[in-house]
Amino acid sequence: MTAEMFPKEKTIDLRKKHIGPSCKVFFSHDPIKIVRAKGQYMYDENGVRYLDCINNVAHVGHSHPMVVKAGAEQMELLNTNSRFLHDNLVQYAQRLQATLPEKLSVCYFVNSGSEANDLALRLAWEYTGHKDVITLDNAYHGHVSSLINISPYKFHQLANAEQSKSVHVALSPDLYRGNYRQDHPDPATAYADDVNNLIQKAHEKGHKVGAFIAESLQSCGGQVIPPAGYFQKVAQHVHQAGGLFIADEVQVGFGRVGTHFWAFQLQGEDFVPDIVTMGKPIGNGHPMSCVVTTREVAEAFKNSGMEYFNTFGGNPVSCAIGLAVLDVIEKEDLQGNALRVGGYLMRLLEQQKEKHPLVGDIRGRGLFVGAELVRDRVKLTPATAEAQDIIYNSKLCFPRLKEQHILLSADGPHRNVLKFKPPMCFSEEDADMVVEKIDEILTGVKPCSQLAIVI
Amino acid sequence: MTAEMFPKEKTIDLRKKHIGPSCKVFFSHDPIKIVRAKGQYMYDENGVRYLDCINNVAHVGHSHPMVVKAGAEQMELLNTNSRFLHDNLVQYAQRLQATLPEKLSVCYFVNSGSEANDLALRLAWEYTGHKDVITLDNAYHGHVSSLINISPYKFHQLANAEQSKSVHVALSPDLYRGNYRQDHPDPATAYADDVNNLIQKAHEKGHKVGAFIAESLQSCGGQVIPPAGYFQKVAQHVHQAGGLFIADEVQVGFGRVGTHFWAFQLQGEDFVPDIVTMGKPIGNGHPMSCVVTTREVAEAFKNSGMEYFNTFGGNPVSCAIGLAVLDVIEKEDLQGNALRVGGYLMRLLEQQKEKHPLVGDIRGRGLFVGAELVRDRVKLTPATAEAQDIIYNSKLCFPRLKEQHILLSADGPHRNVLKFKPPMCFSEEDADMVVEKIDEILTGVKPCSQLAIVI
Repeated sequence: MTAEMFPKEKTIDLRKKHIGPSCKVFFSHDPIKIVRAKGQYMYDENGVRYLDCINNVAHVGHSHPMVVKAGAEQMELLNTNSRFLHDNLVQYAQRLQATLPEKLSVCYFVNSGSEANDLALRLAWEYTGHKDVITLDNAYHGHVSSLINISPYKFHQLANAEQSKSVHVALSPDLYRGNYRQDHPDPATAYADDVNNLIQKAHEKGHKVGAFIAESLQSCGGQVIPPAGYFQKVAQHVHQAGGLFIADEVQVGFGRVGTHFWAFQLQGEDFVPDIVTMGKPIGNGHPMSCVVTTREVAEAFKNSGMEYFNTFGGNPVSCAIGLAVLDVIEKEDLQGNALRVGGYLMRLLEQQKEKHPLVGDIRGRGLFVGAELVRDRVKLTPATAEAQDIIYNSKLCFPRLKEQHILLSADGPHRNVLKFKPPMCFSEEDADMVVEKIDEILTGVKPCSQLAIVI
Repeated sequence: MTAEMFPKEKTIDLRKKHIGPSCKVFFSHDPIKIVRAKGQYMYDENGVRYLDCINNVAHVGHSHPMVVKAGAEQMELLNTNSRFLHDNLVQYAQRLQATLPEKLSVCYFVNSGSEANDLALRLAWEYTGHKDVITLDNAYHGHVSSLINISPYKFHQLANAEQSKSVHVALSPDLYRGNYRQDHPDPATAYADDVNNLIQKAHEKGHKVGAFIAESLQSCGGQVIPPAGYFQKVAQHVHQAGGLFIADEVQVGFGRVGTHFWAFQLQGEDFVPDIVTMGKPIGNGHPMSCVVTTREVAEAFKNSGMEYFNTFGGNPVSCAIGLAVLDVIEKEDLQGNALRVGGYLMRLLEQQKEKHPLVGDIRGRGLFVGAELVRDRVKLTPATAEAQDIIYNSKLCFPRLKEQHILLSADGPHRNVLKFKPPMCFSEEDADMVVEKIDEILTGVKPCSQLAIVI
């Protein structure tokens, strides 16, 4: 089977002609064409293999045969909407529920993290009767209009951004670069107090808070790990104001953090959000996602009188695929692998921090890891250009990760955090390879202009 | 392969326990469990065959082997996001573009009709700098919060609905029950003038109109066929106000109307919307959808400075499936079939209208057909209970369509319009069967209470 139809230049031309110019490609000056993928490896049209350190969507590994088989078999039988009874739907809901605290028992199946977070807001608005939302600085929760409003990561990109009056941005609970750092005696309380201040200010303006929403670990926001206990304290303030706590697990759920199945569980056994949203890894690339909430919230939403119907959400194919993903995570102990390999990767990166002054901070849980690069370890000046230069350098004066066939990306408000969120089958050998290459580049890194003169 | 895992009662119990109570099932007092489907037929757990007159999502027929094969083969190879180059994406965009007027050349691939319509609003807001939206009465455009706001079909369901001040509801261009009817000399102009009045009123309040949005034929709104020329006149008013025209083809596109590939083309060759959204039939049940617009609108959106990324949108599997759907429509001449069988169905239903006073109006194009039931042909009193009674009667005192294994539904603001939107492989024999059963029921229909006394 030939997987390529057009020469690469033609693909690029057609893309320019027919695909929205706001939709970016990786490595825009020299994008890559991927024609197949397996496990943690992707292959271009010439058969060149790339190590994938970034595609958290391909959670159990690209094109996993058990997932493909489950999807294909169900497609052959039936794919229709959830107004008909189907066992896949209820079995999948039951299986998901079993991974969560008992009170999170009611599921809504939708098609994307964006649809999930939008529905979470609708649930919170309806249950509380309050309109305002508190979100974290640098947060990204999705691309539909309601979520752009609560995503500083997005609305800060706009030339003439106008922040909604019903959205309040709380401090990102970042212990490295945030307002309260590792040396603070009680950062969890300090950051939670900031949320409480926002609530009080909203009240002063006659506003009422319907929800606090946060990724359980901030991803695009810079691989931020909030201090344990923070969510409990925030939930206390938010509940007192009559609002709900929404934990966005779209990027970080499904065993990625290693010690737990859900990242919010890192906060402590005593913490249970009111609503959990899940997405990307849930279907290993198949468009699906889910919102889980309590019976009370679900009944209030029903009592609004409005039916909720989602054409594709919870269809038998999506549920078959979702069940297969859960099976593979269990069968291949991918949560355990995330814990082991993630720990190994963290140790390798810590060695890099000791060796290279540019590496300011290593943080992570399981296979969700960030390496923040700084020009100055006291001032924390973001090493933005350097981060980009490690990943990919269009001038090709020194082979960077991309030229060495390793896919990595940088994110965070300053785009200076190397982020690792590979498929969960990532191995210690893979970790060795990427860190070895980073070490080589950091050792040899010079501005391209100087190198060009030497050459 | 056994397709049933739980006895039906257990499925119902688990559904009550774990699925949001706002998510309704068909025939709630005695829902059906479907375990497989092929073409225009669905089969329950006992092998009973149902004729499917309602699932427009299974556009080329349930579980079409060419579509299943295309999806399965691509899943085996690769399913990843559109930041990597892939030929399926550009080939699919090219193929879709070829079905549209030339100026509609730029595609954004997303996951659902809701995501598509939300993005269409974002494009219009960004391009025009105007915020207000004009929508039709009884319109439904999707389930995310921004679309509930512009969907009277939904927000009228709310106990304490609060209509957004930036949303204006225009008259539904309904020639049967609307303000201007078949006897009006120029309903197209009259309905378009109503839109213009809304624009002027918005201007008086200092508001500016960014978009007019309408389904090319109103579906949930009651299978409404707007008079030809209406869209042109509306577009003129909207453009003059600096707004854009969004044609929502989510339910009615892809050849369903028979004479044309897109329903907006029924308005005349000279009409081209600024944005077209497509969904349900696009992937024959696979979660995918698309927004197509002009280069000018796309460039303005890009110039906002905000990247647009959609995790699943335009992935190689979705595009492979989309391509296969286009192939099947062509290869099996399903557009031609929609024209022929749709015409045949309309003629059969017209005979019913002559025979039964309850049948007030038959309207449609291709395999998008509505039969509006009224108690009085002058007052047009909606025969809501009668419509429900034909479809399904929980008291089982007389076998209705459901008990005769035919799936039909009723919609419109009064839920009195029987709506036909079957898979496009629907045959004349299928049309004979459903109309024959409707005839039997209409001939024998008596209130159940009376029958119960007789029995």
